[in-house]
Amino acid sequence: MTLRQTESHPHLHEPFVVDTTYSPQARLHPLHLRQVRLQDRFWEPRRQINRTITLPSQYQQCVQTGRLDNFRRAAGQIEGPFQGRFFNDSDVYKWVEAVAWTLAAEKDEKLEALVDEVIGLIAAAQGEDGYLNTYFTFENADKRWTDLQVMHELYCAGHLIQAAVAHHRATGKTTLLDVATRFADSIDSVFGPGKRPGTCGHPEIEMALVELARDTDEERYLKLAQFFIDNRGQQPPIISGKTYYQDHAPFRQQDEVVGHAVRALYLYAGATDVYTETGEQALLHAINALWADLQQHKVYVTGGVGSRYDGEAVGESYELPNDQAYTETCAAIAHIMWAWRLLLLTGNALYADAMELTLYNGMLAGISLDGESYFYQNPLADRGRHRRQPWFGTACCPPNVARLLASLPGYIYTTSDADLWVHLYTSSEANVRLPQGSVLKCKQTSNYPWDGKIKLSIKPEQANTTFGLNLRIPAWAHGATVSVNGERLAPPIQPGSYCRIERTWQPGDQVELVLPLVMRAVTSHPYISNNNGRVALLRGPLVYCVEQADHEADVWDLYLPKDFQWSEHYAENLLGGVVTAQTLAFARTDTDWQQQLYRTYGEEQPTYAPATLTAIPYYAWANREAGPMQVWLPIKPD
Amino acid sequence: MTLRQTESHPHLHEPFVVDTTYSPQARLHPLHLRQVRLQDRFWEPRRQINRTITLPSQYQQCVQTGRLDNFRRAAGQIEGPFQGRFFNDSDVYKWVEAVAWTLAAEKDEKLEALVDEVIGLIAAAQGEDGYLNTYFTFENADKRWTDLQVMHELYCAGHLIQAAVAHHRATGKTTLLDVATRFADSIDSVFGPGKRPGTCGHPEIEMALVELARDTDEERYLKLAQFFIDNRGQQPPIISGKTYYQDHAPFRQQDEVVGHAVRALYLYAGATDVYTETGEQALLHAINALWADLQQHKVYVTGGVGSRYDGEAVGESYELPNDQAYTETCAAIAHIMWAWRLLLLTGNALYADAMELTLYNGMLAGISLDGESYFYQNPLADRGRHRRQPWFGTACCPPNVARLLASLPGYIYTTSDADLWVHLYTSSEANVRLPQGSVLKCKQTSNYPWDGKIKLSIKPEQANTTFGLNLRIPAWAHGATVSVNGERLAPPIQPGSYCRIERTWQPGDQVELVLPLVMRAVTSHPYISNNNGRVALLRGPLVYCVEQADHEADVWDLYLPKDFQWSEHYAENLLGGVVTAQTLAFARTDTDWQQQLYRTYGEEQPTYAPATLTAIPYYAWANREAGPMQVWLPIKPD
Repeated sequence: MTLRQTESHPHLHEPFVVDTTYSPQARLHPLHLRQVRLQDRFWEPRRQINRTITLPSQYQQCVQTGRLDNFRRAAGQIEGPFQGRFFNDSDVYKWVEAVAWTLAAEKDEKLEALVDEVIGLIAAAQGEDGYLNTYFTFENADKRWTDLQVMHELYCAGHLIQAAVAHHRATGKTTLLDVATRFADSIDSVFGPGKRPGTCGHPEIEMALVELARDTDEERYLKLAQFFIDNRGQQPPIISGKTYYQDHAPFRQQDEVVGHAVRALYLYAGATDVYTETGEQALLHAINALWADLQQHKVYVTGGVGSRYDGEAVGESYELPNDQAYTETCAAIAHIMWAWRLLLLTGNALYADAMELTLYNGMLAGISLDGESYFYQNPLADRGRHRRQPWFGTACCPPNVARLLASLPGYIYTTSDADLWVHLYTSSEANVRLPQGSVLKCKQTSNYPWDGKIKLSIKPEQANTTFGLNLRIPAWAHGATVSVNGERLAPPIQPGSYCRIERTWQPGDQVELVLPLVMRAVTSHPYISNNNGRVALLRGPLVYCVEQADHEADVWDLYLPKDFQWSEHYAENLLGGVVTAQTLAFARTDTDWQQQLYRTYGEEQPTYAPATLTAIPYYAWANREAGPMQVWLPIKPD
Repeated sequence: MTLRQTESHPHLHEPFVVDTTYSPQARLHPLHLRQVRLQDRFWEPRRQINRTITLPSQYQQCVQTGRLDNFRRAAGQIEGPFQGRFFNDSDVYKWVEAVAWTLAAEKDEKLEALVDEVIGLIAAAQGEDGYLNTYFTFENADKRWTDLQVMHELYCAGHLIQAAVAHHRATGKTTLLDVATRFADSIDSVFGPGKRPGTCGHPEIEMALVELARDTDEERYLKLAQFFIDNRGQQPPIISGKTYYQDHAPFRQQDEVVGHAVRALYLYAGATDVYTETGEQALLHAINALWADLQQHKVYVTGGVGSRYDGEAVGESYELPNDQAYTETCAAIAHIMWAWRLLLLTGNALYADAMELTLYNGMLAGISLDGESYFYQNPLADRGRHRRQPWFGTACCPPNVARLLASLPGYIYTTSDADLWVHLYTSSEANVRLPQGSVLKCKQTSNYPWDGKIKLSIKPEQANTTFGLNLRIPAWAHGATVSVNGERLAPPIQPGSYCRIERTWQPGDQVELVLPLVMRAVTSHPYISNNNGRVALLRGPLVYCVEQADHEADVWDLYLPKDFQWSEHYAENLLGGVVTAQTLAFARTDTDWQQQLYRTYGEEQPTYAPATLTAIPYYAWANREAGPMQVWLPIKPD
């Protein structure tokens, strides 16, 4: 880790979402939340719902479920039993983090008052020795650090630290950071080489400690993060030896994504953070192998991860059932977090593709359009029983969605030495200072993801400013075009890479990127038997599905013709405004098999009726009346 | 319940597997184990392995895992802690039951000594008040009957009672029956109308109590079985209110098979037993609705039941994944037990079909050919990791297989008033006394399931004996023929029913049934997406699969041509002797998709190489080197 020299490197503490400003291995450095202002009709309205509806309602949930009272109780302010699950503190921390990212970009006195109140409760609940976990107080105080496998103490600490770093970067206040560093110091006094071995049954603190190290210039925290990674998979096992807890093998020897999906992906993200500072090749080797295994064998077309209800696990290669997809919303978010870190590390567009896909689909389906209910699991097919809920006993997903939406402007632009990079397309304004010193504004105008035309207006502070502008060309964007001041760049514009425009820029220079936003279909590997003979539909980054509300025939009876042709239109008043796509299709009419589940081969004579098939974005499903849905649609056999 | 009048009805206590001899609703009455002697090359060798290898090795497992020591400990004979899981007594009871059925038919001094030893331990462990559960002794004695939802006390009692009834019927001894009735009386003193409400979180005792009532002429036990059924699904819930524990709805209102598969099927079997005695229409209504739901929506082509690892649950309609099929061996056995009861009740061939299918596939795959290792789960597709184990921490399946194999001769023949019924085809001799009084021998000769020719030699004790002979014509047996003394019966011989031959029989009359044993293929309902475009292969009652050991290409790459043609031959030295089937087929050669899990529709250009596909019986898989396997094979698209 290169410590920030306060003389040569000003110590900014700006609201970066993962601060790689001084990370030796990082190719890219994000713009922070005060540098980017969203002005679009897709994400910014969602962020406003997040601020005005989701976060206040989540606060109320934390009140009603005793999550805040647990802190009051630990502080000795009230009596009574601990309420809820032993890891419930973490939901409060994630809510604080979400509010912090929100306050980084805009004023909200109500949220600021709430978060200050909550931080006050958190601080009051901290022990004199720095320890902080409201479950492990009073009758459970003597059980601290006795069950690292199950009890989530370091996991909760990780969420506290992430919240504190976000709050510090967003507000400049150290009220929560002081609490977090005291606890981190307490943890550091217990665990480490020559002290206690150990690691958490639920990875999370690794990411947090690296960011804390960056925020405080304390290399100790980075070393502690690495220690927790090093302590996994030892012989004999330090915590469990089990895949579920990510303790089955030393991290550096891993090349197979296994076990609990969220645990796995949080660990990989944390290991990536550590590598970004240390440059240790063995870590990178494992990280690359795990990424390849995930993308080649174990990820849903939505970017969702985790095939199994059983153990909330990733599943075997090609084990990607649709109706029983677990695909926890938190796993999608973890996938985004990991992809973001790999993107910062490498500048490789494939990570941005994965991040965008998961953002618009695997993650976004996790919250209702009204911002008040959530999916824990995100199936890709359903008979109508799976509905979003206002909260859960284990409520990890709701505040996880909230913190991601709140921090979203931080994922759009990055810089490298003399380059500006645009990763996500959405109307926004960015105030950029390139590492080599140039200052410029970049105004992006688009109606993405509905429309593929993206305009960038570049305004360097000084005329004749030379730098490179890197525009992400998604891997699906065959036929994309780029123009500068009306002049088309010579092809090829390579999908799955960044189109780099190096020039001496003048204020008012106009760049236009056109991405081919049309419906497209994909097939999946033949070993995914539940998708055999089926296609999934996408348009730009959006996965589409068919939902019962738009159809008379059961949507599980719909078949696409081989040569489907789409008519697409923007429906302003549907599902908050979406592009829908229609095609002539078929509805199978012989699916009432009476008393038979199996029939003699050859006896089956499928019959079909003409039907119009309407596809909507997957993220928007289950916001109308309940009914069947599916993503993977069968092609009618000849 | 019609009590057995000791005067008019002799009280036989013969080894019936479900004794419907005096059950008012039962149409059929089984022959008992001493009336039927297997002489075939399929089941009888398995029963001998069961007797000489499986049962002794299971005894050793019970010794080594402390299951027997738990009884010694409860009896005060040894010190030390309780060992293993709290329901471990039940495995010992199932082993005793298996030995009892074995001893019913043949002498085995070693097993007899072992079972007497074990029964001695069981008796010694019983409390003075009749209570018996080795977990709930000493430090846990005060927790008896405090957690009916979880703790399996009545479940263990049920297995004790089943073992005791089997042992009594098989040996005439009352050593274990006395123990069981004392415990049953103790239970009856605690639970019942006007006493404690309650029912077990794991159904099982219902079946046991009905058989105990039949064995002892004590109607109280029948009433207690009914009470335990009545106590389910009450508002407020008596034990849990959850589907997992079969407490979600009153039994008589149920029409959907839900929750834990084994719990569900044991309950349905028990309710069927109760109905068989009481004739209460509301019970029959629910039983019929549940059977229909199971067969129309939720059963595997192997007869296996239970789609989910999560909660070992049945799953939704059409949720029948192949690689992640849970299909616990015990659930297949429970399916057989339920089907057997419904067959005895009705004489409807569809129940015999389900029983036979599950026997040869879902159940039989649960044990290795050498009789020493077991599957808990029985997937229908695998990449090579799923292998049989010599035992399990939760070891319900191994002794369950053992008791079924031991009792198998009891499922082959039944009688009704003036009829003999043949349900399963296997070389055997039966000594029959029809309820109307006729006495006869029936000798069955066949090489089923490999060969479809079945000869029955009928020898009435007296010439000119008139009765009906009912031969099961399986639903798949289109083109079956029946001849009597060389004279072909006029068609149609209706598949899915019994062909009844009523005549006046003479000693030496010969009946020949020819079942068309050829490879056939079935498709499944289109909503089972993982089977779309695929067929499963069967031959007679046997489901076939492809296993890696017989192929060079990965068997997941094999595709059948649309017009596959089989060449079949009996391979004496393969897998204990099986008919294999070969066809020309295709091996897809483009399944290495490199770094892609998804591809643009239309880009995929499948390529195939010619291949020979060899199918083997599903029950025999995983007895050679590990490798991929699958049951549902794709048809090569045009």
